[in-house]
This record gives sequence, structure tokens and C-alpha cells, in this order.
Amino acid sequence: MKKVLIHITLKEGVLDPQGKAVQHSLETLGYDTVKEVRVGKYMELVVEDDASIEQQVETMCEKLLANPVIENYSYTVEEVVPL
Amino acid sequence: MKKVLIHITLKEGVLDPQGKAVQHSLETLGYDTVKEVRVGKYMELVVEDDASIEQQVETMCEKLLANPVIENYSYTVEEVVPL
Repeated sequence: MKKVLIHITLKEGVLDPQGKAVQHSLETLGYDTVKEVRVGKYMELVVEDDASIEQQVETMCEKLLANPVIENYSYTVEEVVPL
Repeated sequence: MKKVLIHITLKEGVLDPQGKAVQHSLETLGYDTVKEVRVGKYMELVVEDDASIEQQVETMCEKLLANPVIENYSYTVEEVVPL
């Protein structure tokens, strides 16, 4: 089994109202040293071993997990350590 | 300036309906090798340099960014590379 860690972030230049809201809340709490906040998604997938796993993850991201028009994605594949 | 990368994930044992929904959608698309999906949050903060930055980020996570009852958080601090 493999563990796939996926990061999905908004492309540069795309407005991030959620990030702005978080930044504003932090400011209200007194954290005015925070100059910018961008919010993204993070997913952990447990996937059966397969030679084409990277290819598959890319199609998953393109088709379902990310919106390639406004989002970038990146991923890393690691071995699942059995307990 | 520093860039703080924050990962927020549900604690082990906490149900993740969003992850289940994603897994189900992937299955519908034919990706039945995906055995588990957990969805988390990922944030990038740009913060002014400060000696106590790690301490501050921890309080931000505890107070606002994460729900410490059901979520774990982790973060890394890196230097912002000027363009």
C-alpha cells in the first residue's frame, strides 16, 4: 500500500476570500504580523500498489480533486509503514 | 519575512464524511484502488520576522485555525525567497 499526500492550492493571482477572512480574524486576535493567508486543501489517500500510481493520481486531481482552472496541485507518494 | 506552512488533519478515529464522499466519487470514476481518503486543510501564512514566531503560530492554531479537540496540526517555518 502507498500513501499519497496531495496539496491543492489556489493559483497565484486568484483571489482567496477564505484566506482574507482568516487573516482578518487573526488580526482581530492581535496577530497583525500576519501579512497574508492562503487556504488550500490537503488530502491523504491510501492506495493499493500499482506501477502507474503517479499517472492515476494526476488524473484524479485533474478530474475530481482539484479545479485545474484556478488551482495547482502537487503530490508525494510514500510507502505505508505497517503498524 | 517568513512563510509558515500549516497542515491541519482530523485526529485518528474521528470520522471524515468529506473524505468518504471523495473516496466514493473516485470509486464511481473507476479508481477502486483508493482504499481511504482523509481530507485536511493546508494554509500558507506570510508572517513578519519575529523571534517568537513558532510560539505565535501554535497559539493561532490552538485558538483559531484548528479545533484541537478533533484536529491535529503541524507546521514548518521557512524563509520567504525574495523575487
